[in-house]
Amino acid sequence: MLPAIDAEIRAVVDSPRLTAYTGLRDILAYQLGWEGPGSGIEARGKRIRPLLVTLTAEAVGGDWQKALPAAAAVELLHNFSLIHDDIEDASLLRRGRSTVWAKWGNALAINAGDAMFALAFAALQRLEQTVGPAAAFRAGTILTDTCLQLTGGQHLDITYEDADSLPLESYWPMVTGKTAALLSACVQFGVICGGAGSPTLEILSRFGYSLGLGFQIQDDWLGIWGDESQTGKSNASDLTAGKKSLPILYGQKLGGGFAHAWLNRTKGAIDTEHLTELLVEEGVREYTETQAAQYTRDAMSALKQAGLQTDAGQALHELAASLLNRCF
Amino acid sequence: MLPAIDAEIRAVVDSPRLTAYTGLRDILAYQLGWEGPGSGIEARGKRIRPLLVTLTAEAVGGDWQKALPAAAAVELLHNFSLIHDDIEDASLLRRGRSTVWAKWGNALAINAGDAMFALAFAALQRLEQTVGPAAAFRAGTILTDTCLQLTGGQHLDITYEDADSLPLESYWPMVTGKTAALLSACVQFGVICGGAGSPTLEILSRFGYSLGLGFQIQDDWLGIWGDESQTGKSNASDLTAGKKSLPILYGQKLGGGFAHAWLNRTKGAIDTEHLTELLVEEGVREYTETQAAQYTRDAMSALKQAGLQTDAGQALHELAASLLNRCF
Repeated sequence: MLPAIDAEIRAVVDSPRLTAYTGLRDILAYQLGWEGPGSGIEARGKRIRPLLVTLTAEAVGGDWQKALPAAAAVELLHNFSLIHDDIEDASLLRRGRSTVWAKWGNALAINAGDAMFALAFAALQRLEQTVGPAAAFRAGTILTDTCLQLTGGQHLDITYEDADSLPLESYWPMVTGKTAALLSACVQFGVICGGAGSPTLEILSRFGYSLGLGFQIQDDWLGIWGDESQTGKSNASDLTAGKKSLPILYGQKLGGGFAHAWLNRTKGAIDTEHLTELLVEEGVREYTETQAAQYTRDAMSALKQAGLQTDAGQALHELAASLLNRCF
Repeated sequence: MLPAIDAEIRAVVDSPRLTAYTGLRDILAYQLGWEGPGSGIEARGKRIRPLLVTLTAEAVGGDWQKALPAAAAVELLHNFSLIHDDIEDASLLRRGRSTVWAKWGNALAINAGDAMFALAFAALQRLEQTVGPAAAFRAGTILTDTCLQLTGGQHLDITYEDADSLPLESYWPMVTGKTAALLSACVQFGVICGGAGSPTLEILSRFGYSLGLGFQIQDDWLGIWGDESQTGKSNASDLTAGKKSLPILYGQKLGGGFAHAWLNRTKGAIDTEHLTELLVEEGVREYTETQAAQYTRDAMSALKQAGLQTDAGQALHELAASLLNRCF
């Protein structure tokens, strides 16, 4: 499926409308891992989101090829958010390469992100040819709603940066918007393109949200207890950066030794080893694992409830399991 | 029509999806001139684009109220581009108030622009209720295409900034993308919502492009010879900023006294009075006026060709005339 997904994305990016503007397309091709220094398979990311679309379409009894426009759309939307997130977080590296803003500057990077955003809609509109205008229109409303959730979650994430402490409840709307909404949209697109009805849409939409939350909580776990050789980043980085991750927020809520040490930490000289130990002692690691397990169970149980007894259903199950079994 | 347009925009911005994310909506309400220091009629802009939508819908024999979702969409899209343009140009003021990035910082401003972008699509999708899903889908493809042209034109504008000299031909794709595409989209939305056929769409789409180009060329003229008390900005600013406006590019192309003085200008000590005189002497002012007059004639002739013998047709004519008769 991956070559077909890539070809579909290329067809959209190489539209005559865009190629009329020299230079802009090159930035997009760089972000997508096709061109420039370090381009190649590694630079393209795992394409998890488009695979969720096509596998779901096939799993509910449809033809995955009809879902290709939606698969391209979610990958373009994901890459739009990466370009802008990297500017907002001042990140210099992405998948081992310079970020777009680091290479072209803020102005061209913001604008290239906007073009990628528009291309996500352009990609989705090609659904008219494969599943008709009514389904294409419906998919458009889901994409729009997903964008609002993405920007809502990102807004919270940015405003949280300067907050010294936050209630645990702040965590859920942020990660629902930033991570779960798009994964759920992928599954919903798959259901719509596969021609399944509302009950399946409702069940699998829930699967998508739980998958997204379980995935994010595991990411937070890896950000403290992950194996550096596997995650590719220092497992102290979330503590150093003061990221509003689930373990850190829960540790603060407990008001024990970790919360005290966290409040009194000195920037630049954080004893991450000690903080990590406190989190384990106070049961925060266990809490995080319980939460991840809960959402993993919810996701898998929704998937089972959908009753997808096909090869694609099995492949979808395996993709979800691989996303949800990255740590413990 | 203006109160109805404002109410439609409010209905979209105050959607439950967005209000779930505290703070984000406030930034959008500020940009739209509803809230914050300096809010009010002046801060809202002239709402030219939504008026073009509703007046066109009525003028082709439709009901302007059915076009309200599209009117809201173009105003939201315009404001999205203003938020991002102000970051990209590092502009501190917009309509006499602090720009969004100057008030909230780059990260929240980029993200708020993205939310405004998504809301433009959310607004347009409400057309399903007034003109049905097929017309709503078609409008969506026009909005997407317009976004691609906008970002294409903006890409050129940013890359031109550092260029010392540019061929005159560079001007047209930039302003077509940045200004004319959206004005043409407004008119196209009006035609579609008003239920008129393809011949009218083709004629009035041309009207929109010519209107946009004529408007932009007049803007360029005002940027050098405008009355400061009317334009609200120094009439030397385009020369000081080295803006790639039509008079400056044409003056360079001539290769005469202006081109020589322009190449040898010292930043920080530009003799704008002398440069302006050279432009007049070398016929650049006259050339600019001829170009503006040409596009104004094209626009008015297309409008006449459409044969809109209604009160709204007359109002549309007056709106176009007011946009195209701002200087000479």
